Amino acid sequence: LLTVALVSTGHEVLRGHTLNTNAAWLARRVTEVGARVRVVLTVGDDLADLSRALSAAAAQAEAVLVTGGLGPTEDDRSREALAAVMGVALEHDERAWRTIRARFEAAGLAPSASQRRQALVPAGAVVLPNLQGTAPGLVARAAGAEVFLLPGPPREMQAMFEGQVLPRWRTGGRLDDVASRVVWTAGVPESEVAAPLEAAMRAEEPVVGTHPDEGEVAIRVLARGPGAASRADEVVRLAREALGPAVVSERDDERVQHALVARAKDRRLVLTTAESVTGGLVARMLCEVPGASDVFRGGWVVYSDAWKASALGVPEDLLRAHGPVSEAVARDMAERALARAPADVALATTGVAGPGPDAAGIAAGTAFVACALRDGPTTVRRLSMALPRLTVQRRVAVAVLDLARRLLAPR
Amino acid sequence: LLTVALVSTGHEVLRGHTLNTNAAWLARRVTEVGARVRVVLTVGDDLADLSRALSAAAAQAEAVLVTGGLGPTEDDRSREALAAVMGVALEHDERAWRTIRARFEAAGLAPSASQRRQALVPAGAVVLPNLQGTAPGLVARAAGAEVFLLPGPPREMQAMFEGQVLPRWRTGGRLDDVASRVVWTAGVPESEVAAPLEAAMRAEEPVVGTHPDEGEVAIRVLARGPGAASRADEVVRLAREALGPAVVSERDDERVQHALVARAKDRRLVLTTAESVTGGLVARMLCEVPGASDVFRGGWVVYSDAWKASALGVPEDLLRAHGPVSEAVARDMAERALARAPADVALATTGVAGPGPDAAGIAAGTAFVACALRDGPTTVRRLSMALPRLTVQRRVAVAVLDLARRLLAPR
Repeated sequence: LLTVALVSTGHEVLRGHTLNTNAAWLARRVTEVGARVRVVLTVGDDLADLSRALSAAAAQAEAVLVTGGLGPTEDDRSREALAAVMGVALEHDERAWRTIRARFEAAGLAPSASQRRQALVPAGAVVLPNLQGTAPGLVARAAGAEVFLLPGPPREMQAMFEGQVLPRWRTGGRLDDVASRVVWTAGVPESEVAAPLEAAMRAEEPVVGTHPDEGEVAIRVLARGPGAASRADEVVRLAREALGPAVVSERDDERVQHALVARAKDRRLVLTTAESVTGGLVARMLCEVPGASDVFRGGWVVYSDAWKASALGVPEDLLRAHGPVSEAVARDMAERALARAPADVALATTGVAGPGPDAAGIAAGTAFVACALRDGPTTVRRLSMALPRLTVQRRVAVAVLDLARRLLAPR
Repeated sequence: LLTVALVSTGHEVLRGHTLNTNAAWLARRVTEVGARVRVVLTVGDDLADLSRALSAAAAQAEAVLVTGGLGPTEDDRSREALAAVMGVALEHDERAWRTIRARFEAAGLAPSASQRRQALVPAGAVVLPNLQGTAPGLVARAAGAEVFLLPGPPREMQAMFEGQVLPRWRTGGRLDDVASRVVWTAGVPESEVAAPLEAAMRAEEPVVGTHPDEGEVAIRVLARGPGAASRADEVVRLAREALGPAVVSERDDERVQHALVARAKDRRLVLTTAESVTGGLVARMLCEVPGASDVFRGGWVVYSDAWKASALGVPEDLLRAHGPVSEAVARDMAERALARAPADVALATTGVAGPGPDAAGIAAGTAFVACALRDGPTTVRRLSMALPRLTVQRRVAVAVLDLARRLLAPR
């Protein structure tokens, strides 16, 4: 099994203003393709720190992926650090320089003098062409490991990993058989998602974990070695059987809003929304899905009581009698949205996002979600949580999308 | 200047499914309070890897902050790694154990046998009480550095850093004078934000950088040593003068939607929204702001042409003549929303989010945003960008919020 160390350079991450998304992306891909990340190091652009990190990484892993520090400025020190660890000099590489110049000239520009830094190569290193930008990558043996220098911009880094690092690893037969699976669930707390998988999670192989994210919970399975796929699929089967209708999808790019849009499309149903506490988030999540316009034409944001009455026609008596955060108002909002809209399914939310309680003293984190069907009953659910304002809004939106998704179960 | 190394444990980050938000939070706070992060290391729960990371961190910095690995299971190895690096044994700490038991008993529970692991302490280490959870923290001298073990859950980790790490550093007089400032801007590309600050960005001190984020750009300033505050303020003054109306705020928790809500509140104006391409995102961003209900009562999501006509009354002739993605329709949507709503300012969006062009062949990333005022003219702006669907939606929402913010400039 190929072991890998990741080294990220750059002050942005060290000062905490940028999340290390390059390292996360590489960690995920390296794992998926059948290698193992052993350590992730982040350092600034100090040459000594960077060289030390490179040596430490090379001592712990067979391959090292360095991102960043390949730009044309003096703060870009990855080439120097690699040369230092290899104990060789940096040399001007005429072929790399011609490629850089050609890129500039194609854009009608002349490269600046400092751009020549990007054509410096430690003696013995191999240049990896960058098809997305000017900074070429490099690969060399250093301190016992195969060290790759990749550019920092994510698009360039990702293309170089896929196009040049991965083929080398595959050709070398250095990747393990790996099967990685994900099962997304909604509407069930993490502890209940984990319960039926307890034995699988305790086992060493495959590795099974639960990962809560914004009101949904992912089950991730990673199997390695011969028979990986069937062992991973067995856990997925177990999860599917135990969790049934809570299962949203088996893909990372399919969350509750995608699943709902797909079901509505299948059944040729049109959705509409009437949102109070979520303030447009439910509509926005539906519109995140490419092709959402097939099943979502429009909706209402009715944040105030007056607007609930004027835009949707919720009776002022009802608002007074039950208060705006109530089962009765959630139900009425959904049913009136359905009556006014050319739609088959209406999703409604009302609640208190916080930080404090509302004027009637209802606690922050209390909400009602409702789903009205053109040809069926209206379903209302009460939610209660002690969480920050944005999290409450997000959880309530996920809850109503999931309620509709369950009600539109394939027949 | 105190140098700090951060060590995070846990497979989630190593597999790339979780961003290292603990490290980012600590990196930001450590920098703000006047120390310097030298390296960030992430390792799994292998004892040898963890011990090696601890030693490497201690060799490079005066203080080491380790997060995670303090739980009650066998995968929680931070205590063992610290003992290994110190070359001492783990001992049962009766006082720590009593505190853990008391926390369980207060919740009406009995601690499990495995919980006793949490009371194991390397000989000579000092226990740091955890007021938010069961796992106590630890501090000890190891390999020449002061090593802190902090719990992994962010709330517990943050409370322990603020309540126990920071006071020690302050008492020791080990923190530098630091002044950190941020200036958020909107409506101006990063290159134009950076242009007037070029000289300041080239200087060694203070450190000045620009950081684009979802259509807004932050200018960050970090000054150190005597006179830090006035040097940082001088850069802020320069940015304010050069960028004028593009400046949104000087706080990280105040972005374009917060600035717009604040201005509307000041001028006692009510906002409404009519959204096509952003699908509810503009309303949702307004509702992110606590107290948004003072200035936002409701709005429309009009995703389809038919809905633009039926809900807002946009004439079908106009939609046919100009197409839904046009200056004329954006203007009409804003003006009709204003005519129908008890509001003073209406924000409207129409465009093509993508991935592909719309039915009329208009390219993905084309959009119009409009802002209509009760007592003033309507302003429309055209946008064009080659970006992914979600980014287009986000940028369009930021653009219309910023347009309204600028139109409501303090008088």
